[in-house]
Amino acid sequence: MTVKVGVAGYGVIGQRLADGVARQKDMTLVGVADVAPTLSVRALKEKGMPYKLFAATAEGRISLEAAGFAVSGAFEDLVGQVDVMLDSSPGGVGAKNKEIYKKLGKKAIFQGGEQNSVADVFFHGYANYEKGLGADYLKLTSCNTTGLIRAVDCLDRAVGVEKVAITIIRRVADPGDYHRGLTNALQVDRAPSHQAVDLMTVMPHVGATGILVHTPVSHGHIITVLATPKKDVEVQEAAALFREHPRVRVVRLDEGFLGNASLFRYARDLGNPRGDMYEIALWEDTLVKSGRDLMFAINIPQEAVTIPETMDAIRAALKMQTDRLEATAATNENLGLGKWRKN
Amino acid sequence: MTVKVGVAGYGVIGQRLADGVARQKDMTLVGVADVAPTLSVRALKEKGMPYKLFAATAEGRISLEAAGFAVSGAFEDLVGQVDVMLDSSPGGVGAKNKEIYKKLGKKAIFQGGEQNSVADVFFHGYANYEKGLGADYLKLTSCNTTGLIRAVDCLDRAVGVEKVAITIIRRVADPGDYHRGLTNALQVDRAPSHQAVDLMTVMPHVGATGILVHTPVSHGHIITVLATPKKDVEVQEAAALFREHPRVRVVRLDEGFLGNASLFRYARDLGNPRGDMYEIALWEDTLVKSGRDLMFAINIPQEAVTIPETMDAIRAALKMQTDRLEATAATNENLGLGKWRKN
Amino acid sequence: MTVKVGVAGYGVIGQRLADGVARQKDMTLVGVADVAPTLSVRALKEKGMPYKLFAATAEGRISLEAAGFAVSGAFEDLVGQVDVMLDSSPGGVGAKNKEIYKKLGKKAIFQGGEQNSVADVFFHGYANYEKGLGADYLKLTSCNTTGLIRAVDCLDRAVGVEKVAITIIRRVADPGDYHRGLTNALQVDRAPSHQAVDLMTVMPHVGATGILVHTPVSHGHIITVLATPKKDVEVQEAAALFREHPRVRVVRLDEGFLGNASLFRYARDLGNPRGDMYEIALWEDTLVKSGRDLMFAINIPQEAVTIPETMDAIRAALKMQTDRLEATAATNENLGLGKWRKN
Amino acid sequence: MTVKVGVAGYGVIGQRLADGVARQKDMTLVGVADVAPTLSVRALKEKGMPYKLFAATAEGRISLEAAGFAVSGAFEDLVGQVDVMLDSSPGGVGAKNKEIYKKLGKKAIFQGGEQNSVADVFFHGYANYEKGLGADYLKLTSCNTTGLIRAVDCLDRAVGVEKVAITIIRRVADPGDYHRGLTNALQVDRAPSHQAVDLMTVMPHVGATGILVHTPVSHGHIITVLATPKKDVEVQEAAALFREHPRVRVVRLDEGFLGNASLFRYARDLGNPRGDMYEIALWEDTLVKSGRDLMFAINIPQEAVTIPETMDAIRAALKMQTDRLEATAATNENLGLGKWRKN
Repeated sequence: MTVKVGVAGYGVIGQRLADGVARQKDMTLVGVADVAPTLSVRALKEKGMPYKLFAATAEGRISLEAAGFAVSGAFEDLVGQVDVMLDSSPGGVGAKNKEIYKKLGKKAIFQGGEQNSVADVFFHGYANYEKGLGADYLKLTSCNTTGLIRAVDCLDRAVGVEKVAITIIRRVADPGDYHRGLTNALQVDRAPSHQAVDLMTVMPHVGATGILVHTPVSHGHIITVLATPKKDVEVQEAAALFREHPRVRVVRLDEGFLGNASLFRYARDLGNPRGDMYEIALWEDTLVKSGRDLMFAINIPQEAVTIPETMDAIRAALKMQTDRLEATAATNENLGLGKWRKN
Repeated sequence: MTVKVGVAGYGVIGQRLADGVARQKDMTLVGVADVAPTLSVRALKEKGMPYKLFAATAEGRISLEAAGFAVSGAFEDLVGQVDVMLDSSPGGVGAKNKEIYKKLGKKAIFQGGEQNSVADVFFHGYANYEKGLGADYLKLTSCNTTGLIRAVDCLDRAVGVEKVAITIIRRVADPGDYHRGLTNALQVDRAPSHQAVDLMTVMPHVGATGILVHTPVSHGHIITVLATPKKDVEVQEAAALFREHPRVRVVRLDEGFLGNASLFRYARDLGNPRGDMYEIALWEDTLVKSGRDLMFAINIPQEAVTIPETMDAIRAALKMQTDRLEATAATNENLGLGKWRKN
Repeated sequence: MTVKVGVAGYGVIGQRLADGVARQKDMTLVGVADVAPTLSVRALKEKGMPYKLFAATAEGRISLEAAGFAVSGAFEDLVGQVDVMLDSSPGGVGAKNKEIYKKLGKKAIFQGGEQNSVADVFFHGYANYEKGLGADYLKLTSCNTTGLIRAVDCLDRAVGVEKVAITIIRRVADPGDYHRGLTNALQVDRAPSHQAVDLMTVMPHVGATGILVHTPVSHGHIITVLATPKKDVEVQEAAALFREHPRVRVVRLDEGFLGNASLFRYARDLGNPRGDMYEIALWEDTLVKSGRDLMFAINIPQEAVTIPETMDAIRAALKMQTDRLEATAATNENLGLGKWRKN
Repeated sequence: MTVKVGVAGYGVIGQRLADGVARQKDMTLVGVADVAPTLSVRALKEKGMPYKLFAATAEGRISLEAAGFAVSGAFEDLVGQVDVMLDSSPGGVGAKNKEIYKKLGKKAIFQGGEQNSVADVFFHGYANYEKGLGADYLKLTSCNTTGLIRAVDCLDRAVGVEKVAITIIRRVADPGDYHRGLTNALQVDRAPSHQAVDLMTVMPHVGATGILVHTPVSHGHIITVLATPKKDVEVQEAAALFREHPRVRVVRLDEGFLGNASLFRYARDLGNPRGDMYEIALWEDTLVKSGRDLMFAINIPQEAVTIPETMDAIRAALKMQTDRLEATAATNENLGLGKWRKN
């Protein structure tokens, strides 16, 4: 028997959550819900409706049916059939949806755009899986924080990390976004960045600060990390640790990976659905040591990076696995993570 | 028995030519050739080598084997096994390769980057299929010209086109390009643009001029076309003609298709390999009439748009079909073109 | 005695209007009005308040004084002292301000962002100066339309223009804009563009249509113009006509003018205040003929291009000159337009 | 009597060096040298040749005279008349020019693009003025390093700095550049960045590492700095230190300084020649503390930032002042630095 999952909000993240669930052998995607005939919903139709579409609101149903879409039911119909909802609605909507989840007694996993207060646990599959076990409401860390914690947790479990200072060079829009964008401008945010603060919430034994700067690109954030390990570690040892992580790709400039756009191109050339990449990349050429500090740069493919950790969250919430490594291994196996090393 | 095809140059275009051939039921892809372990070649390896890789040069073989790639043979080995080569090498290399094609008595189809003199026929599947029948060396029109001619030929066959004036708003780089790019600048080219001149070569009964401006984007060219039909035609009639064309999508702003990036996103959401789109898009909202002139804007997905017409070229060169509409219909069927209208 | 002028809205356009008035020997700038300590207002203060600052609203006065700015009076105080107001407030605010202008019996000239209905005359210094003579409320054409009409009117007065079709490759934001922008996307507007429609309003004997595409750049719009002259004219003759126009610079690619960013750089290197340019540029390399049609590309420096025609509008509204050429010549002399040809 | 200065290479930096020298009361600009009628040289002509133009090479003279430029003499003629040359030729050319400087017994100051080996001293006006005293050949730190050292030296002299880790978010092109650029891509460099290494050369008592990422913008680099002071210092104390520095502007988001483009706009609105800014900006909103570490972000206006330190270098090389603070004060006074605080 498989776990039944629904997705609220079929946008950039929702589509990828649905695909991710569909790839898990021990899960079944019941359907997805949205409120309007967006491009993503139109693409679902053109593909022949591989997923059932539910109307997330009553008005949404009218809008979708007026546009000729086959609607399988109301939002409550979807929620009623699932064991857990993945909520990737626009920020704030998830909190409203939670009332429905509560009423129908269903668990839910929210994405990073929602307020922390929506959930019992602020979750990361590798860093604090145990905290999510059996929880009713979990919230995933944001795309940047998810990728960042992968790298920091990897170091931390091996050699201990005392503190980190990060600079987030943020992509300001996703491909196809017209509602936000920057033109020939870098934009500075108030420090410390929420990602540094969030890291300390998930990994309370690590000190963190950081600055975020928005940049006019769409194919991946780049984060530079200055990490102070608890014990001295050589650059080659650190590289070896990262190389073993199933959700990290260690890449090099001389292979042709020159920046975030190279990774986007590579994922397309791999034939990945939507040209997505679940893994963060870490440039070996940027891994340097200064005193005891390690510095390195990672690439965060913002559209897909949280999918694996969200699958982990389902596993935790429903106690599909009680062990962190068994859970992440199951997710990795189903998403093909780590497999690429064998070729 | 199927036609045997090889691809020289496994870059942006070459990869898509290989995939396109692999989808034709009446063709077999013998292999692809390249000279270095580029990202595209690395992705081929990570995918488990679905296509055989040949070394395009002797030095290339050394480079590829040193990087751990399985090389199936030399360039002549590939050419020797095929009926026709698709040459998507960097500009100028195709002309050198032609010596090998001649020596081994093989036909070849070159992409738009090559000089016109490399070929006997400057080819477009819809506009001058008959000229390509049995030809030894064909050259495809460039991406912009290919898409432009689709639209102009569509109008021309229905109502006659006297002349066109085009403005090409050119994407300056492909996603992942680091060797070229513009930052916060529009760049003007000398007029008339080669696309206008090329259109007159392929459709000599139509007058054409045009101006090209490079823009700092990567997801599709946009061309505005001012076409003077031979007889008066209403906007709705013209829209209906375009709507029937299997390689044209008529889209609207209110559907969410706001520009070139919307189409890129939509193709990704469709799950198309690499997020590619073979069809040009034409915005119904831009189709206006001024006197007898029609004006409209089209989107050219530069990475994949020439693939269907290249498949047509194989059909012409090898006389797989002698009729223009049968040939293009076969290509369309294999690539799923036009099928989307049914959903 | 000089004409007294005030400026409402000290933003991108307002600053340049104020500077433009200050350069007219027969005008006096009474002051400028704004509502908040924006960067432009802060720069005014850092420069030592060369212009008097008035509060455009009561709340604005509180906001400005709280931030330590010396406010010379309320909006009515400014309006009361002037002969004519130049209104470059955000779109819609001008219509409200008009009530004050009416109450105090003052003339006003609005910028392109305001509704046409705000004014009696839709004005262009070269194309319809006579219509503005003595008018109480004028509205300037927008930046694109102003520059476009310069070129079309220049041709029209010499050889007659029957119709035009334009493609506007629009810069989407000004340098320093953070409230709007596009990232790696071209955006299409519904056709016909308002600039084509506006051209027909100002030049009713010319047919016009056009398409506008937004691009992610900040240094100048580029418009391609297809103009059908009433009589046959050679490319060299047309170039000579443009070369004589004091508000048009005919430039060439081989001089180093490769696009909009070259012109921005050149204006900075000239030492122009703010690196502004009043002139449109026309690329001689793009001027081509197809049948009787002429095609060419022009550059529109969006921040400053309407300043000369606004000075013309003051001259018309106050009947400072009754002759179109005397008026534009006075503006040109004061702004140094055409003088550059002598070096 | 004033010091006589010449400028080799009248490009982005050379123009600003010439303007900077012209503003020093105790220096005389003899002339500038270049090899071709670039846009900058054309602008010099249109302005009426405020500076004498020399031909940097014999071929250059032919090229300039053929284009109608008045050439005041050969390169040796310029060098022969000066006390010191400022060399802002393209990278590598300065080393060749040095032979001429040596032959004619003249001192020279090279810009950051040249190899370190070209000079006796790697110079920064604030950090190691004394090293430059009487030196024959100095090389300025690059734009990023110059701005970075201003901030680090400021902290270091007050409280001591043990080490820094920097992330350089680099603008990839200047406004008007068409020969380089990135489109929708971030590009990663091998670490440690040369700026970190250069900082250690100029300030050998400070440890440094860093990563540089190129971004597709043109209006200023942003550097995040993690500095470990030798003694504990509060955020407010650090802000006060920076606020006192005549070449640092402490700015805030709520003033409207949202990023690098805001500073570019502000400098234009100030009426600075070319819209240039000599000062780096430091965002008070980014200044945070983590343990003893301080983190903050600075803006580097790449076109003009090295001008003040180059004026300092002239002062050092010719021993115009022997005291670091007297020298920098003289430069600051002539360039109006620090004066802005009074308004």
